Amino acid sequence: MRLSRYFLPVLKENPSEAQIVSHRYMLRAGMIKQSAAGIYSWLPLGYKVLKNIEKIVHEEQIRAGHIPMLMPTLQSADLWRESGRYDDYGQEMLRISDRHGRDMLYGPTNEELITDIFRSHVGSYKDLPLTLYHIQWKFRDEIRPRFGVMRGREFLMKDGYNFDLTKEDALHAYNRHLVSYLRSYERMGLQAIPMRADGGPIGGDYTHEFLVLAETGESEVFYDSEITDLKFGNREIDYDSVEQCQAVLEEFTSRYARTDETHDEALFAQVPEERRRVARGIEVGQIFYFGTKYSEPMGATVVNEKQERVPVHMGSHGIGVSRLVGAIIEASHDDKGIIWPEGVTPFHVGIVNLKQGDAEADAACEALYKSFTALGLEPLYDDRSERAGAKFATMDLIGLPWRITVGPRGLKNGVVELTCRRTGESEELAPEMAVEKVAGIYAGL
Amino acid sequence: MRLSRYFLPVLKENPSEAQIVSHRYMLRAGMIKQSAAGIYSWLPLGYKVLKNIEKIVHEEQIRAGHIPMLMPTLQSADLWRESGRYDDYGQEMLRISDRHGRDMLYGPTNEELITDIFRSHVGSYKDLPLTLYHIQWKFRDEIRPRFGVMRGREFLMKDGYNFDLTKEDALHAYNRHLVSYLRSYERMGLQAIPMRADGGPIGGDYTHEFLVLAETGESEVFYDSEITDLKFGNREIDYDSVEQCQAVLEEFTSRYARTDETHDEALFAQVPEERRRVARGIEVGQIFYFGTKYSEPMGATVVNEKQERVPVHMGSHGIGVSRLVGAIIEASHDDKGIIWPEGVTPFHVGIVNLKQGDAEADAACEALYKSFTALGLEPLYDDRSERAGAKFATMDLIGLPWRITVGPRGLKNGVVELTCRRTGESEELAPEMAVEKVAGIYAGL
Repeated sequence: MRLSRYFLPVLKENPSEAQIVSHRYMLRAGMIKQSAAGIYSWLPLGYKVLKNIEKIVHEEQIRAGHIPMLMPTLQSADLWRESGRYDDYGQEMLRISDRHGRDMLYGPTNEELITDIFRSHVGSYKDLPLTLYHIQWKFRDEIRPRFGVMRGREFLMKDGYNFDLTKEDALHAYNRHLVSYLRSYERMGLQAIPMRADGGPIGGDYTHEFLVLAETGESEVFYDSEITDLKFGNREIDYDSVEQCQAVLEEFTSRYARTDETHDEALFAQVPEERRRVARGIEVGQIFYFGTKYSEPMGATVVNEKQERVPVHMGSHGIGVSRLVGAIIEASHDDKGIIWPEGVTPFHVGIVNLKQGDAEADAACEALYKSFTALGLEPLYDDRSERAGAKFATMDLIGLPWRITVGPRGLKNGVVELTCRRTGESEELAPEMAVEKVAGIYAGL
Repeated sequence: MRLSRYFLPVLKENPSEAQIVSHRYMLRAGMIKQSAAGIYSWLPLGYKVLKNIEKIVHEEQIRAGHIPMLMPTLQSADLWRESGRYDDYGQEMLRISDRHGRDMLYGPTNEELITDIFRSHVGSYKDLPLTLYHIQWKFRDEIRPRFGVMRGREFLMKDGYNFDLTKEDALHAYNRHLVSYLRSYERMGLQAIPMRADGGPIGGDYTHEFLVLAETGESEVFYDSEITDLKFGNREIDYDSVEQCQAVLEEFTSRYARTDETHDEALFAQVPEERRRVARGIEVGQIFYFGTKYSEPMGATVVNEKQERVPVHMGSHGIGVSRLVGAIIEASHDDKGIIWPEGVTPFHVGIVNLKQGDAEADAACEALYKSFTALGLEPLYDDRSERAGAKFATMDLIGLPWRITVGPRGLKNGVVELTCRRTGESEELAPEMAVEKVAGIYAGL
């Protein structure tokens, strides 16, 4: 993309309404614009990051054998009356009346709807195991929406639901989700620690939250520092293997890690003192096993091998897709702006032309642009007639991990400058070597 | 995908509520499930088709130089009061009151919101031309939703908005949209004819609708039969070229083609009688140029080269993404089921194992499955222990364009059977030749 043809409305000033760094940078980098309290438009740059995160989530869910579908945003109140949650949910549920006066709601979650789909179509244990998921916009009418997309009212979430014949099978589904979530977050450049959590309104006595450590996190977290050394890495996993998934669960959850909601001082005291950490974290996902909590009242049953009709064991599993955009920024930025991990960056590399209009510099930039595009990488080429300082400031603010600077002086010596956003380190390279180096980094993801 | 692990709840009976063929087949093929009047869940098979259509729309919009973003589903009523449309829109607008009693609405379209984004961030003619678009769920509270996804209440639409300094530039944007729409529909296997249309509530004195001919179409259409011979084909086009885009507009709109709303008997009579056609059509898209209708009242202005502040010229351009799923089925089916065009099919090829459990047949199917997957194609392998007739009926119903049938008898002669869904023609081929033939068809798309 050429910046002269893009829509990137960066702001020079810090917007006064933004209290945390991700909100501030998302506004300043032209990623979002608030259209109503807690409701945002995703401007082109923000949209690209959102889609990159969504893509990783899809790929990892499909890899785990989970099946994508899509439920609508609006739901009938009747289903929620059946589960008993319509009255329980309180004012965070946006209740709507249609032109015929029928009670509807903007779905804050989808246990009822998916259970209804299941019971309408599945009747035999032979159709199990089954895990369906979708990525859809949801709404929670927060009384005080704030922190930008971190606590908005309309938000994008992946929610998945497993249906299994037995508790044992459902716990395998739980473990599969845990593994797929670890992989997903790592691909986004995040370390998200699974912490024992509280069931809340969805219910469930077996649940973990995934927390990203960040000073601005809404939760206080307590953990054994050994946990931050764990990496999922590139290991191969067979998602059908109960043992392999269970082993990952044990590896990543056996050490102490809890939020303030479930924190237990006595247990924490058993962690060697030098490994005890108290910090803050941002919740970016949660997995639940809740057994027959919805299947029983809603009649989601199957006939088992003995011809008995039994309620299925279910769980639900969520990833906060739009919230992750903010969480990644909270975890990865400096005082100049955002630092995107390569896995989610909106453009793979920035090209800064120090002397727009100089025939040699323009040609070199165009050649770089074509080389990257031919390799399937997306460059953002700042082809505006701005001074170098303004171009650098924009690139630093929007946080592309790699920048190539092209100017007449370097070109005389046959080089361009390749700069890493995270370290700030630069090196001079022949243009084709710079392309090769950047391409190699992305090929290794 | 192995069918034994998929969620494909096909129905044997015709659902009584479905009046038109696309609705009937979408329910029977397990593509959708109604969750409330005019509101559907997209089951896995339907979701895949929806995503394929969405992908084509994205690719063609980006090719035309239009920039993707995403606006929220819920909007504040204030913006609609500013344009004067809040009261005009009538009961089809779903009005919502949040917990603080603020007036909101579920967006039926986004002229106000995009104009607000534009005026907040763009001030100079140098930032033009600009075309932003998004693909998002919208809601129209139809009094009598019917025909499945063809006239649902919650529906997925691509809507794009161009901002230009002059009427001339805006008409070029209009033409770019026309060209990109022609390409999009052709890639979906559809012939959609641009017809002179009526502005309706969006306004605009320059507008075309795109109609797909189908007996169940909601509009009566009148056209010169020469129009159906026109193909966009694989021609290269420079979207920046005013002349090239204008030439396509003229080629595709110079012959008589109108819906009942704009039909003119006198003009139609000038078409040679043997070329006059009266038929029915389904609207799958519409483009508008509406000048300064929104930019003037909402103050969306730029400073031009003479330092004068002028309102921008705008247009809006929509494609009915979820509606297209139904429209494609209306245009492409037979009495056995759907016939997907290769461009949108949910799976590229079906593999039917005539004797599940037979070692040789199982191995041959697995080998085909792996070959297709390795080529980046998605097979649907019916690995269930069902009789052949039931497997064929399912494949015919869900409409995959190509089917490979594998049985012990053929394998003895070293062949499998490759069947074209559309023609019903079969040929016996060595398995690797069948893979090569199918791969060749998709490579040519």
